[in-house]
Amino acid sequence: MKRKLRMGMVGGGQGAFIGAVHRAAANLDGQIELVAGAFSSDPARSKASGKELYIAPDRCYASYQEMAKAEAALPEDQRIDFVSIVTPNHTHFDVSKTFLQAGFNVICDKPMTFDLAQAKKMRSIVKKSGKVFALTHNYTGYPMVKEARDLVSKGKLGKILKIVVEYPQGWLLSALEKEDQKQAAWRTDPKRAGASCCIGDIGTHAENLARYITGLKITEMCADFTTFVPGRLLEDDGNILVHYDNGARGILYASQISGGDENNLNIRIYGEKASLEWHQEEPNDLIVKYADKPRQTLRRGNDYLSKAAKDNTRLPAGHPEAFIEAFANIYMAAAKAIDCEVHGKKMPKVLDFPNVEDGIEGMAFIETAVRSAKGKAKWTKFVKA
Amino acid sequence: MKRKLRMGMVGGGQGAFIGAVHRAAANLDGQIELVAGAFSSDPARSKASGKELYIAPDRCYASYQEMAKAEAALPEDQRIDFVSIVTPNHTHFDVSKTFLQAGFNVICDKPMTFDLAQAKKMRSIVKKSGKVFALTHNYTGYPMVKEARDLVSKGKLGKILKIVVEYPQGWLLSALEKEDQKQAAWRTDPKRAGASCCIGDIGTHAENLARYITGLKITEMCADFTTFVPGRLLEDDGNILVHYDNGARGILYASQISGGDENNLNIRIYGEKASLEWHQEEPNDLIVKYADKPRQTLRRGNDYLSKAAKDNTRLPAGHPEAFIEAFANIYMAAAKAIDCEVHGKKMPKVLDFPNVEDGIEGMAFIETAVRSAKGKAKWTKFVKA
Amino acid sequence: MKRKLRMGMVGGGQGAFIGAVHRAAANLDGQIELVAGAFSSDPARSKASGKELYIAPDRCYASYQEMAKAEAALPEDQRIDFVSIVTPNHTHFDVSKTFLQAGFNVICDKPMTFDLAQAKKMRSIVKKSGKVFALTHNYTGYPMVKEARDLVSKGKLGKILKIVVEYPQGWLLSALEKEDQKQAAWRTDPKRAGASCCIGDIGTHAENLARYITGLKITEMCADFTTFVPGRLLEDDGNILVHYDNGARGILYASQISGGDENNLNIRIYGEKASLEWHQEEPNDLIVKYADKPRQTLRRGNDYLSKAAKDNTRLPAGHPEAFIEAFANIYMAAAKAIDCEVHGKKMPKVLDFPNVEDGIEGMAFIETAVRSAKGKAKWTKFVKA
Amino acid sequence: MKRKLRMGMVGGGQGAFIGAVHRAAANLDGQIELVAGAFSSDPARSKASGKELYIAPDRCYASYQEMAKAEAALPEDQRIDFVSIVTPNHTHFDVSKTFLQAGFNVICDKPMTFDLAQAKKMRSIVKKSGKVFALTHNYTGYPMVKEARDLVSKGKLGKILKIVVEYPQGWLLSALEKEDQKQAAWRTDPKRAGASCCIGDIGTHAENLARYITGLKITEMCADFTTFVPGRLLEDDGNILVHYDNGARGILYASQISGGDENNLNIRIYGEKASLEWHQEEPNDLIVKYADKPRQTLRRGNDYLSKAAKDNTRLPAGHPEAFIEAFANIYMAAAKAIDCEVHGKKMPKVLDFPNVEDGIEGMAFIETAVRSAKGKAKWTKFVKA
Repeated sequence: MKRKLRMGMVGGGQGAFIGAVHRAAANLDGQIELVAGAFSSDPARSKASGKELYIAPDRCYASYQEMAKAEAALPEDQRIDFVSIVTPNHTHFDVSKTFLQAGFNVICDKPMTFDLAQAKKMRSIVKKSGKVFALTHNYTGYPMVKEARDLVSKGKLGKILKIVVEYPQGWLLSALEKEDQKQAAWRTDPKRAGASCCIGDIGTHAENLARYITGLKITEMCADFTTFVPGRLLEDDGNILVHYDNGARGILYASQISGGDENNLNIRIYGEKASLEWHQEEPNDLIVKYADKPRQTLRRGNDYLSKAAKDNTRLPAGHPEAFIEAFANIYMAAAKAIDCEVHGKKMPKVLDFPNVEDGIEGMAFIETAVRSAKGKAKWTKFVKA
Repeated sequence: MKRKLRMGMVGGGQGAFIGAVHRAAANLDGQIELVAGAFSSDPARSKASGKELYIAPDRCYASYQEMAKAEAALPEDQRIDFVSIVTPNHTHFDVSKTFLQAGFNVICDKPMTFDLAQAKKMRSIVKKSGKVFALTHNYTGYPMVKEARDLVSKGKLGKILKIVVEYPQGWLLSALEKEDQKQAAWRTDPKRAGASCCIGDIGTHAENLARYITGLKITEMCADFTTFVPGRLLEDDGNILVHYDNGARGILYASQISGGDENNLNIRIYGEKASLEWHQEEPNDLIVKYADKPRQTLRRGNDYLSKAAKDNTRLPAGHPEAFIEAFANIYMAAAKAIDCEVHGKKMPKVLDFPNVEDGIEGMAFIETAVRSAKGKAKWTKFVKA
Repeated sequence: MKRKLRMGMVGGGQGAFIGAVHRAAANLDGQIELVAGAFSSDPARSKASGKELYIAPDRCYASYQEMAKAEAALPEDQRIDFVSIVTPNHTHFDVSKTFLQAGFNVICDKPMTFDLAQAKKMRSIVKKSGKVFALTHNYTGYPMVKEARDLVSKGKLGKILKIVVEYPQGWLLSALEKEDQKQAAWRTDPKRAGASCCIGDIGTHAENLARYITGLKITEMCADFTTFVPGRLLEDDGNILVHYDNGARGILYASQISGGDENNLNIRIYGEKASLEWHQEEPNDLIVKYADKPRQTLRRGNDYLSKAAKDNTRLPAGHPEAFIEAFANIYMAAAKAIDCEVHGKKMPKVLDFPNVEDGIEGMAFIETAVRSAKGKAKWTKFVKA
Repeated sequence: MKRKLRMGMVGGGQGAFIGAVHRAAANLDGQIELVAGAFSSDPARSKASGKELYIAPDRCYASYQEMAKAEAALPEDQRIDFVSIVTPNHTHFDVSKTFLQAGFNVICDKPMTFDLAQAKKMRSIVKKSGKVFALTHNYTGYPMVKEARDLVSKGKLGKILKIVVEYPQGWLLSALEKEDQKQAAWRTDPKRAGASCCIGDIGTHAENLARYITGLKITEMCADFTTFVPGRLLEDDGNILVHYDNGARGILYASQISGGDENNLNIRIYGEKASLEWHQEEPNDLIVKYADKPRQTLRRGNDYLSKAAKDNTRLPAGHPEAFIEAFANIYMAAAKAIDCEVHGKKMPKVLDFPNVEDGIEGMAFIETAVRSAKGKAKWTKFVKA
């Protein structure tokens, strides 16, 4: 890239969590500079947040609509190249739409939209805009996840038979939403989070991770949702039996009431020839298991890894990388595409970041799970068309 | 005990696996001596096996029927005090019945019987006999499993919300039963194993483990069975959604096609106040997790553990104990009861070994799972009455 | 800080390793911008490197001397606030001196100087300059290392009895220096690395880590150095017996020929009341061991941790942080001091970053070890005066 | 073996620790029966202990001398085949000598004798007796230790460069010997334990383990002993720099004041081609590390292991084995040799159990370490001649 990309941000003001993560991910490699933002729906808070981030006051906007308009009116060599959207779920669609239609590339937090219908509309909007749209399913940014995908795609596991992907957290074990905890409040509110809390917030990461590594698609599922915390309006625990399109079987579960678990995303994939497991909380290792050979631990940063793993690594082996770097890998992959779009260059052959199609898959997954879980868990076809 | 108990064995001849485990468990503490056996349905093989085990030739019997009769005819100070039954599933009932009715105590391998109907008959037979009947759900013999149970019973976890118990193995990933591997042959044969392979053989251990620790009972389940290996007659993979009687939710799964997994039984129990996890392949540790305190690792052999854990431990901390010792704990608990029965002493207050009721629960679990899985997985009430 | 700090860099051009780490650490929090550099002693390479980093061409200097002079001549609102020095060891002193005397704050990679004599001169120069001088002993930036220090300082371990700190790497097992590998070449060259390779490069991190956590000082040591790779001029393995000033005993070892080990820095500290261990390759956990209580695992990101640990954490528990974040913690602590220096504000009460005194300790450690190891390992007093 | 071997025991009465371990090890495989003993120097206690062990009263002896004499006088088909000696260190020589000269095979706990002079006399006595003498350096009985030895002997590691073997325990952190704890009392008493506590009791296991795996011999060492607990007469912590006969370097340390560590014996061996590590507290795994290939975990019970590992394994992979089984492997290897001796059969080609030569090496190691540590740690030649 011949210059740093200019980034704007919607959401992520003081007290937010994921906005700071996006900024760190954007900062890490020194290829992107944050120059504008509508950091809060409260104009004063937006200004104050922007000031802390060293944004010029005239580019701290009172609303995203104002921001899109004002930025579009700036000269080409000043205006933002893309916007990062880090607001609650229910606004993703409108904000994305506004910026795409104003001619900006978009990096949007997941889940992509409020519901599947919106997701499909998003596809048309993206297509029509010709802009880059990236979705931050950040766990696929980990180099050892890319290694896992490479192993599967090269047939090292043989035919996949079974996938067990689990994502237990414990932070919603108590009714934090009643204590005015912002993160808990919107995630448990159907008006802002959508039809699902636990599966929508983290189950969708599990789905995306399994699909990213294996390429398999869910054909049907049987989802058992429970709301353990009294008064909560959405499920805080979901256990799902899954059938995949190649005949593989699976278990996918997510939980927010698994006390003492932090962000315990784990995946195990069993194939006819080999199996693998990866643990998000120890992300530098990928374990490969064989029926008749010693178990292997592949470690990030080594020469024996695939190009995909190595291209997404910054530090030598033994110097651990973690969550921010994985997130930054999504940003850098999107940035390369955005750079091409902005400067009219040819897109890279491989676009290794989650896109609008992943967003549709994710929304279809959530809606299918919600339908399956309604009343009593029952087998439900995965429909996205 | 004032003398060693005298044990007989049915099954467990040359080439068998579990018979050797039972003998090692019986040997370990020097309280039991093996003095008789019908080690094979092939009389010559039975003799040869007995010889290797230093059994007097006249007590190596050609059949279990002959053995029961002959032993019963021996003077009281010579005949066996109990029999260990380590034959394939379909024979457990007849052998147990024969020995119970001949006046012998019984230690029987799991699953208890071929089906639930037999299991219920077994209850009557045991009751009528007045003899001790122990079932070797050996994983409940581990001291740290007893510690887990103690923590739950003392309310340290609060109300249990969720149980995830998994038991993946990989040894049946290929069609071993066609290569004349004895263990594989009978386990995959509906005539000898019963209505289930994977869930019957190991899923039932998972069920027993969860129930032993928590005391919770399954009310209904939705079981997804798959037979991955072509030509196999029973399932080699089973994934089950579970509802418990206190409102807890669970996932229970077992697999024999999870390549590279060995005997990977794991349990995680989540409560309102704390959670715990235990891993059979690293059995000396019990992990206790809290929302607001450091994670704890309780290690076998330490003074801070419960009486139950300490009473079932032989070595100081750091000198690891494992599978055989856990199995021996079942044997020793049963032996104490048998010793009382034999010498007309008062039974101990706590009988901490699996019994005929556990066998009925196990068979009901298997049958419910099989019913649930038939056709397409569907919610099925747990029925044992 | 009311504006981003402006950073310059000396060294760290194309092909270098540690320069990129410093830049990522500086970038991460969006508080620092890189605006100038003398990235290589080769002027063309310096320019090319600067271009890749989006530095204005007129601030890509041909030498550090030119840079210091030119930057000092810039108006106050343009010139750099500090310089990061990431050149080989033998130049640290001259470059630091030049910038300190030109009125700039300095962040310097370790070891601080070529030898102890230089280190002591550096102290005078720093003192005289009134500028901030930070040394990147980055491992002390890890939050769980800060937690360890906090536990020790609060007396939770009681009197420290024993310290085992080890730092095995395997990357110099073959004679990489003969294959023109830049990192290997200068580290094994006494003219650039100084009197020690392994102990100087990584043993000094081990020393710093132990001292940071415990506050104990070495009184004497017995160091056994070996050069395993033929033709190598400096030691590639060093094993040291250590005596500390409170009577504690220790083992400190470092190795670069421990094949298959990556960056395996580990420390165990044993006290009268409790013990702890920390592993750099799994940095989010701190293990605390008691004689009579369950082992604890303290995990980064939790509320129960000390202020020092929490202040140096960016992400919630379970979202792992790693090497770059720890490095960035050193940068942010130094940046806060630099910001005060630049804007004439009062220095923060706690300056939690390694400084010139740590540099002197480090150089004295290296020289003592080299003296001890000369000929045959012998007990040698730690002298730094 | 055509009949069970008959074992006698000296020591191991009520309240002892290691005697029970020897009995369990002997019991496990059903090849050995305990038939006689002098379990305590207190005749009444010996009787009482024997009764608990179901020994015939006339074979519970009041002293080992009486036992040797009485057993030798029994008919060949009744008398013991060998004696296990599990008394404190200072009596090993006299008891062993008595039984060897009375014509019995001996299995003796380590360290072999009170000092090196006795050890050398033991060699002559053993040689003259023509009997089997086995020493229970039990850690070499672990199958994965045998695998490690096999890998080294096949050259898989290349030339060995470095050995780090450590054995920290914490149980003597307080002055247990003043609280009348029997185990602590004799181990810290120079009259019963010999010239060393920590190095003699557990350091010698570390030495034996390293030598067993690598075959390397120590040429010189520099040993730093400390007595941390006031009033204790022998060292409770020892840190040793080691030089091996092939030029390899090493660190060997043992500690009994490392609070919270249980029985934390670990070994890491670094070679030119590969490295390995093994941890006694997780004994079923052996980790092999390569510079340029994924790390491997070899797991007990798998077909890919060496004959030595497989021959010393009882259970399938994933069914963990532990301390008792390793101990039993020493017993079984010795038992095979004893069986040959008793029945005049040809000795097996491979005698894989520690013998009198290992005992001499161990005593020479202890004495060299004590000499080296005297006053101030200094380099001291390993002398055993």
